[in-house]
Amino acid sequence: MTRPRPLVPRGDPADTVKVVGEFGVIDRVLAQAGTARVAQVGPGDDAAVLRTPDRRVVATTDVLVEGRHFRRDWSSAEDIGHKAAAANLADVAAMGGVATALLVGLACPSSTQTAWLEGVAAGLAAECGPLGAAVVGGDLVASAADSTSVVLSVTALGDLAGRAPVLRSGARPGDVLALAGRLGWSACGLAVLRRGFSSPIAVVAAHRRPTPPYAAGPGAAEAGATSMCDVSDGLLADLGHIAAASSVVIDVDRAALVRACLEPDGPLQQVGSALGVDPLAWVLTGGEDHALVATFPARTPLPVGWTPIGVVRGGRRAQGVLVDGTPAADVVRAVGAEGAGHVHFG
Amino acid sequence: MTRPRPLVPRGDPADTVKVVGEFGVIDRVLAQAGTARVAQVGPGDDAAVLRTPDRRVVATTDVLVEGRHFRRDWSSAEDIGHKAAAANLADVAAMGGVATALLVGLACPSSTQTAWLEGVAAGLAAECGPLGAAVVGGDLVASAADSTSVVLSVTALGDLAGRAPVLRSGARPGDVLALAGRLGWSACGLAVLRRGFSSPIAVVAAHRRPTPPYAAGPGAAEAGATSMCDVSDGLLADLGHIAAASSVVIDVDRAALVRACLEPDGPLQQVGSALGVDPLAWVLTGGEDHALVATFPARTPLPVGWTPIGVVRGGRRAQGVLVDGTPAADVVRAVGAEGAGHVHFG
Repeated sequence: MTRPRPLVPRGDPADTVKVVGEFGVIDRVLAQAGTARVAQVGPGDDAAVLRTPDRRVVATTDVLVEGRHFRRDWSSAEDIGHKAAAANLADVAAMGGVATALLVGLACPSSTQTAWLEGVAAGLAAECGPLGAAVVGGDLVASAADSTSVVLSVTALGDLAGRAPVLRSGARPGDVLALAGRLGWSACGLAVLRRGFSSPIAVVAAHRRPTPPYAAGPGAAEAGATSMCDVSDGLLADLGHIAAASSVVIDVDRAALVRACLEPDGPLQQVGSALGVDPLAWVLTGGEDHALVATFPARTPLPVGWTPIGVVRGGRRAQGVLVDGTPAADVVRAVGAEGAGHVHFG
Repeated sequence: MTRPRPLVPRGDPADTVKVVGEFGVIDRVLAQAGTARVAQVGPGDDAAVLRTPDRRVVATTDVLVEGRHFRRDWSSAEDIGHKAAAANLADVAAMGGVATALLVGLACPSSTQTAWLEGVAAGLAAECGPLGAAVVGGDLVASAADSTSVVLSVTALGDLAGRAPVLRSGARPGDVLALAGRLGWSACGLAVLRRGFSSPIAVVAAHRRPTPPYAAGPGAAEAGATSMCDVSDGLLADLGHIAAASSVVIDVDRAALVRACLEPDGPLQQVGSALGVDPLAWVLTGGEDHALVATFPARTPLPVGWTPIGVVRGGRRAQGVLVDGTPAADVVRAVGAEGAGHVHFG
């Protein structure tokens, strides 16, 4: 459901949802929303109507829960908007698409400051604006009576521009495994924040606002990628999804991964030394950077932004993911990484 | 984000999310999901890919919060799935479209029984299946640590099949106001449940599973409706949206509305008598039946399922909605209906 969009004065930034009311808040939030290039009908009616000249639309949803996926004391409202958008935009990129529009459902306590909601909207708009996308609809409701936590649900739609979608199921023995984007930075930043620190700022910022390599997704599709996936659960876990869907074994080249992800004297190495953690643990199991992993036929020149980090082999499904020939679970144990990834249900 | 879809044994129906794990639950839930006619890529990858031969897609989102939009002791899991789907499918119909696919985000405590989630999925599937739609993606996360409540966010996509979308902004002086579907039944059912009763079953069932007139939306679009809206906030409130967006006055014919909505000796009259409530209050201000209201040029034969209930006049915006020439707010006071509608933020 979307709402009319009159011009509304900003009012007191300390106003709450209870004071301003649902429709007043929606008007203020929409003032931050920008305009989606594909919108025929934008916010303000029962539903949005979006152009899909490709005759297909890509669609994906992620839910972020306060305390589990973000903390209001660790991240600004803008950060949370960026992060919620990024998680979904990366899923569209991982199909080979470009995001065109977002729909946002938000449950919050009536004591929530409208300025905070405007900040979330501004973060969403800033993250998807460069792609030509914007929020085109949504719903704002009071959170449950037993909760003061915010729940943010974002749906992204996207365009394949004539390309075939790149699935998880297309990896073939002999393919090259490649990476675009960063791994381990968000998990490292989370480790820093959990210990009460706020620097190095590079990894804390990476946790607050991931920077997925959006263009690498369509680039991989055009170059003939056989499979692709975004890394949101951790590299080894998400490679496991490709391995399972494609019935192949994926063997990560540890030295290549280290070269790609762990620059000497970089922030991950520094924080790892300070905390007594092997930074490879963050690289192998940390989620939320929303890097992309893909497989390409062996002789394909890798497109811009992609680095080879392993190979695809035939074999039994049970052996899904290896690192230098060693089963992923053993490697995870060896680097002490258990629990470094996102825990879905405790 | 969507997930692979292997065959999974049902297991113990009393299993919880914590016991079965996120992916296990998703596999079980997807077994209930059915198949969307438009799906090129369904659940199980980073995103779904849906065909949109019309070169446009309709998109809308609604969030349902336990305790505010449903209660697990008043509604079965299947009821809640039906209701969550209906709220969104009606928004698509109100644009003149037919829903094609749903994406579902769900936050629940880890103690939630998987059988309950399977029930919600079955309800969603049963509500959208007759339209050819199905759940094509989603996300399942743990609810906030301070909450045992379920939050359910549903996005519906839809197809206009070449029709122009019917907006809220197209009503013109002289148009006929018409209604498709029921009004007041859900609010009456809620009043019954709130007082601890469970009959008349007809109104309680209407509250648990609304039955929006989906086909009336595209029918109105084909017949040349100038504006349309679904009734989710209550008739007078939602007519206010059309009046504001179209800069017109809408005058409801009370006698026609009573003829259309309050059959003599019907359940609304019976419950109204028993509770000392004017049933017109439910008709004027009750939401959640997801009836459709639309305006048609004066000499247009109304399509199947539509009944005239008023007229559109020119005039000042401040007078948006009238009943027999009396401002809506005064009528609401007179029938004692304040608070009968959905309260968004308390």
